[in-house]
Amino acid sequence: MGLKLVAFDADDTLWHNERLFTDVQARFRELLSRHTAPEIIEQRLYDTEVSNLRHYGYGVKAFTLSMIETAVDLTDGRVTGEQIAQIVRMGREMLLAPVDLLDGVREVVEEVAARYDLMVLTKGDLIDQESKIARSGLGDFFSHVLIVSRKDRAKYEQVLADHGLAAGEFTMVGNSLKSDIIPVAEMGAHAIHVPYETTWQHEEVAEDDLAALRYHTVEDICSVPEVLAALA
Amino acid sequence: MGLKLVAFDADDTLWHNERLFTDVQARFRELLSRHTAPEIIEQRLYDTEVSNLRHYGYGVKAFTLSMIETAVDLTDGRVTGEQIAQIVRMGREMLLAPVDLLDGVREVVEEVAARYDLMVLTKGDLIDQESKIARSGLGDFFSHVLIVSRKDRAKYEQVLADHGLAAGEFTMVGNSLKSDIIPVAEMGAHAIHVPYETTWQHEEVAEDDLAALRYHTVEDICSVPEVLAALA
Repeated sequence: MGLKLVAFDADDTLWHNERLFTDVQARFRELLSRHTAPEIIEQRLYDTEVSNLRHYGYGVKAFTLSMIETAVDLTDGRVTGEQIAQIVRMGREMLLAPVDLLDGVREVVEEVAARYDLMVLTKGDLIDQESKIARSGLGDFFSHVLIVSRKDRAKYEQVLADHGLAAGEFTMVGNSLKSDIIPVAEMGAHAIHVPYETTWQHEEVAEDDLAALRYHTVEDICSVPEVLAALA
Repeated sequence: MGLKLVAFDADDTLWHNERLFTDVQARFRELLSRHTAPEIIEQRLYDTEVSNLRHYGYGVKAFTLSMIETAVDLTDGRVTGEQIAQIVRMGREMLLAPVDLLDGVREVVEEVAARYDLMVLTKGDLIDQESKIARSGLGDFFSHVLIVSRKDRAKYEQVLADHGLAAGEFTMVGNSLKSDIIPVAEMGAHAIHVPYETTWQHEEVAEDDLAALRYHTVEDICSVPEVLAALA
């Protein structure tokens, strides 16, 4: 039973993303610095984001709306129209930011695409992720693009069913243990963890959830073709 | 060559949607009524929405951000934090509004699902549309859900390819001539137009674009099973 479909996560697996959020969060704290201490701003923004996930999902528009809500709350409504406009502009800048590929990604994707069917399988906002895939210059290497609101075991099982694959014919490559590795390893498919320099707090997992799970960890994406060759 | 897959648009085909936007637009004009005349607010909001489509795509989060941007612009930055908070709340209310099925939809979907594979094929925001499908109670009738950033001929051709279908095996049912009917009729598949009570200005099409195209028009969704039976 050979390997047929290799799916890559996108943000912080193929290109830098968390950096963009970290930069804008710093500008956001600066914007409100006359009103509140930076660590309070940071905590309140995080709490607002997490509580809005259910309604807004992931992505830049959700993040922008959470910044606006946090700014109104933390200033007791004294935030100015100009500050709101700055937040809106920060969000738009994020949407238009150049797509910054991680080192080696282009070569790895090209090499892997010559052997297997490739898929982008990512959470996030539809138009935002499609635009990044287009701007990445990698679009032609991927036969499938699937943008979803969550990556849990049911979603991965649906991907296998839609493509008529057994678990052993599928590999997921990504930086998030919670979204890319655990549910995939749990259903018996292959998973390759490529840790990123930082992990968004909400994606962190407990050590206990990882015990007894079989998956591969590589230092960077350049080792992925070698692991795939050993699997196949 | 029989009919195999019947796809339904969602907003204003399965459930009311435009009404929700119209209601909130009225509240938005009221909110800014001390600053500007209603027809100017309406026009500026529309222009902002259309100019943001490219970056934000469709859906409630995009609409909320466009209202916020319009409010800052039209008040020369004098919009208050409380007004911004009200706009954010209006957006959230839209996301949580009950899903109000059009008359006869449940019966029609149930009947059609007994004969063909059904798909929801809709533009919009990922999490927002998924949530509406879940809340509509219709989810179990649809074997496929596809939420896309645009519905053009290339997208429909991709749907046929993904499902291994000839054009004649596919029918699209929807209220938008621009998104649901024209591209489908152009590629030679079946299209059933079910006009809604209002059409968003941006979805309107010129009469000329319709000449020479073959498609069906029905007064309401209750006639859809009959048209499908005649096609098959």
